[in-house]
Amino acid sequence: MIEPSPYWLRDNCPCAECRDPRSGQKLFQITDLPDDLAVAARTGSAEHLEVLWSDGHRSRYPRAWLAQDAEGDGRTEADKRLWTAADFAGGLPTARWTAYLEDPAERAALLRAVRHSGFAVLRGVPVAERQVLEVAGTFGHVRVTNYGELFDVRVEPDPNNLAFTSVAIAPHTDNPYRDPVPTLQLLHCLDNSAAGGDSGLVDGFQAAALLRAEAPADFAVLTRTVVPFVFRDRGTELRADRPLIEVDPLGRIREVRFNNRSIGTLRGPAGELEAFYTAYRRFAAITLRPELRLDFRLDPGDCLVFDNVRLLHARTAFEQDGSRHLQGCYADLDSLSSTLAVLERHCAALDTIAELFAGEGAGEYLGEAVTMAEHMLQAGALAQAAGAAPELVAAALLHDLGHFHGALHGRDLMQGQDNRHSDTGAAWLAQWFGPEVTEPVRLHVAAKRYLCAVEPGYRERLSEASEYTLQVQGGPMDEEQAAAFAALPGAADAVAVRRWDEQAKEADAATPGFEHFRPLLAALMR
Amino acid sequence: MIEPSPYWLRDNCPCAECRDPRSGQKLFQITDLPDDLAVAARTGSAEHLEVLWSDGHRSRYPRAWLAQDAEGDGRTEADKRLWTAADFAGGLPTARWTAYLEDPAERAALLRAVRHSGFAVLRGVPVAERQVLEVAGTFGHVRVTNYGELFDVRVEPDPNNLAFTSVAIAPHTDNPYRDPVPTLQLLHCLDNSAAGGDSGLVDGFQAAALLRAEAPADFAVLTRTVVPFVFRDRGTELRADRPLIEVDPLGRIREVRFNNRSIGTLRGPAGELEAFYTAYRRFAAITLRPELRLDFRLDPGDCLVFDNVRLLHARTAFEQDGSRHLQGCYADLDSLSSTLAVLERHCAALDTIAELFAGEGAGEYLGEAVTMAEHMLQAGALAQAAGAAPELVAAALLHDLGHFHGALHGRDLMQGQDNRHSDTGAAWLAQWFGPEVTEPVRLHVAAKRYLCAVEPGYRERLSEASEYTLQVQGGPMDEEQAAAFAALPGAADAVAVRRWDEQAKEADAATPGFEHFRPLLAALMR
Repeated sequence: MIEPSPYWLRDNCPCAECRDPRSGQKLFQITDLPDDLAVAARTGSAEHLEVLWSDGHRSRYPRAWLAQDAEGDGRTEADKRLWTAADFAGGLPTARWTAYLEDPAERAALLRAVRHSGFAVLRGVPVAERQVLEVAGTFGHVRVTNYGELFDVRVEPDPNNLAFTSVAIAPHTDNPYRDPVPTLQLLHCLDNSAAGGDSGLVDGFQAAALLRAEAPADFAVLTRTVVPFVFRDRGTELRADRPLIEVDPLGRIREVRFNNRSIGTLRGPAGELEAFYTAYRRFAAITLRPELRLDFRLDPGDCLVFDNVRLLHARTAFEQDGSRHLQGCYADLDSLSSTLAVLERHCAALDTIAELFAGEGAGEYLGEAVTMAEHMLQAGALAQAAGAAPELVAAALLHDLGHFHGALHGRDLMQGQDNRHSDTGAAWLAQWFGPEVTEPVRLHVAAKRYLCAVEPGYRERLSEASEYTLQVQGGPMDEEQAAAFAALPGAADAVAVRRWDEQAKEADAATPGFEHFRPLLAALMR
Repeated sequence: MIEPSPYWLRDNCPCAECRDPRSGQKLFQITDLPDDLAVAARTGSAEHLEVLWSDGHRSRYPRAWLAQDAEGDGRTEADKRLWTAADFAGGLPTARWTAYLEDPAERAALLRAVRHSGFAVLRGVPVAERQVLEVAGTFGHVRVTNYGELFDVRVEPDPNNLAFTSVAIAPHTDNPYRDPVPTLQLLHCLDNSAAGGDSGLVDGFQAAALLRAEAPADFAVLTRTVVPFVFRDRGTELRADRPLIEVDPLGRIREVRFNNRSIGTLRGPAGELEAFYTAYRRFAAITLRPELRLDFRLDPGDCLVFDNVRLLHARTAFEQDGSRHLQGCYADLDSLSSTLAVLERHCAALDTIAELFAGEGAGEYLGEAVTMAEHMLQAGALAQAAGAAPELVAAALLHDLGHFHGALHGRDLMQGQDNRHSDTGAAWLAQWFGPEVTEPVRLHVAAKRYLCAVEPGYRERLSEASEYTLQVQGGPMDEEQAAAFAALPGAADAVAVRRWDEQAKEADAATPGFEHFRPLLAALMR
């Protein structure tokens, strides 16, 4: 590796003095570093680079981190799937509303389609007024505009916008006269029994890329000409000066604005106006190529979600007295991407847990007749059979994961050293689950010590191994400890988990596999 | 003038076929124009250019419009007042909350300060939770983020952001990891009795301009290096790749992002990292120059509004157990600018009306003993003395403005031609006032014809001139007409205005001037 700037390396120091462990935010200013900062010594292993700095600070960097490639924020053409209508001959990216709500994998797939292809359609969304706001709330925050929190697309008696008439509307982006422009639009169909009124989408990035390929000079003109977009009615006077095609400093297409209706008067030298109109007309002609335009019909209950800084949307004319009613609202891509990233984090966490069940969990369970995985699956199944709340089913299913995560392993426990697996398990699970799941896990060992103290005959029913670990974990509680435990808010839940725990040691019991529990776990993650 | 592109000229055709008269939106697509569009003939006067197009269309352009200069959207450095702390030695841009609410000129001045200087402070805002949302609502729409609709800046037990601790925070912009970033921030002080906790602002455009002057190569590096800004907590994972200094295609500074805490790992060739860190450290050092930093203290009831894509904000450390509580929210510059533009439109309209009172209105009033202006001012004053609602006071004050606005003037009326001044006046006023003001104006002539029909003795009390115009206007209503009039929703208001109208013809009566009524009119404009 070529040596990067020492300031780069130091600015990325991961130690707790340099970064807040809670938020990951840096705790120093770049100006706090000395002007003559230098590496005084470098040591380390195959896994880590250790640096002693000229100011005495020490840093430790994972080599894998140093070797990582650059990643983008997903907003430029580099991270998009550019398309033409034929790419969706097999169907549009869609999800059913109920599946979308229940299954995080379904939700992630739909949001990924919006991020990569620029749009997706939810089907079977309840046909109710204001429902579109609910849809937006599943991945972000509604952006309120002069059109309100939501807007009705139907024939209005005194429209302030052509959208609210029955005429055909050519492909365009919305609100280019806003800066910041809303980056997402939702359109929820409540009624579409008029003849006509079909929807059309065009990939504006694809159109811009075609312009660049066919007429590079025209492309360049559109990236550097600042166009005034305007909107004015009685209560509003908006203006934003932005190029039709916005590229990032590396020249990659990042945003497209296209709305002939709202382009105000461009001023400038005659030659520049000439060049702009030539390029603009060429680009406009590309957006109208039939092979770029994806046409489909929204039916009641369909909600189209699309990227308003990339896709152009259009509609065909419809009978003026036909019945067509969409409700729309705006939102933003940043929150959608955040929601998707967190969902993907959850999916990855569930994969990790699944691997623990399949890997380490398939090993011996501390002298019991079942494997650790069988034990936990049985506990989860018992909780479910008892009609327990999902949080308790999850706690029962995951209660022993701490055996794999502390400094000490389960086998240390069997050799007389308490591995405090209830604490380590709860702390590990707290990355994704709330206290309603982690508290019963944290308290499930204490619950055994409690039950042995207060419930006659309980201790006698313990398995041999459980009796052995009871001793390592401190034996039955005394009276004072038991009273303090019983007063804890999570005590009852922990006791319930404990009882399933003790019962879940049946050799050859038929239990569902881990995948059975995945949707339940996914729904609890936050 | 050098001839601009024919497509430019045609795209700006103002005729009703090319532009929707209601919304000003264009009714054609640029691709609708023929490829060989040309000017076939040009004629016109000193005031207008008339063009006959090769496709047969005709356009008519005001010459004054053709000669207009380019105007910007007000968002780049070209339209800002760049400042250093000394520029506010005489005080900050402020307004009292009550004056801001009541007086549109005060409101416009405060919003203009935010637009030009990047900030302003409202004083005397009620010290109440959620009040900051009310403040935002006076000029725009709240932008909801992962921090919620609003956020509390105070010491939190388990902060996900350093803002929610008591440490000093160096000058920075908020939420650079969002794209679109919120362009405005509001901070409303509810309590500030802790020692420390002062606020600081730095003009980021000024700092960037200084960097450009002192180290142009570093400035260029910061405009073209795409920096990853990141934020991650349990429910959020945001990332935006944007330059620290964003310039528009003409090279003018348009946005600044600066937040050391949130800069993630920049990847790239070693030379680029080196160049970036050199430029970044130089820029950071400029932002810390004492002469750039404006320090002040927010007291309870103060609400700071500032441009979050231009100003950097900071605070000094405060006693951890001291009491300091701000509530904040985000909003956007585009709506603020729109609100300001509409307020300025209203101020301009009031100036026009004031000129009518002072100019044409100072002339003779159709044979009465008072001038037209005296007559209308008397009518307004009589309505006010009678305790009428502001809408009716306004209607009484403005009822005869139509004499100045129709194709026919007041003198035509006195020569036997009805100038329909109630209709033209109502239509003209409808640009700014709602039907609660314009309907009594529209119906005030009908009300005379009605009262003469139904109220014994009313006609006898009319002035000589009013009796004359009654004839021109159609004479007293017949029974059917009177019943139809009485059934109109605005009839009672119109009758009230009519009575003040008849009384408002006293020579030498002491009446307030037009300026007395300006705040009342301003509050009714929408």
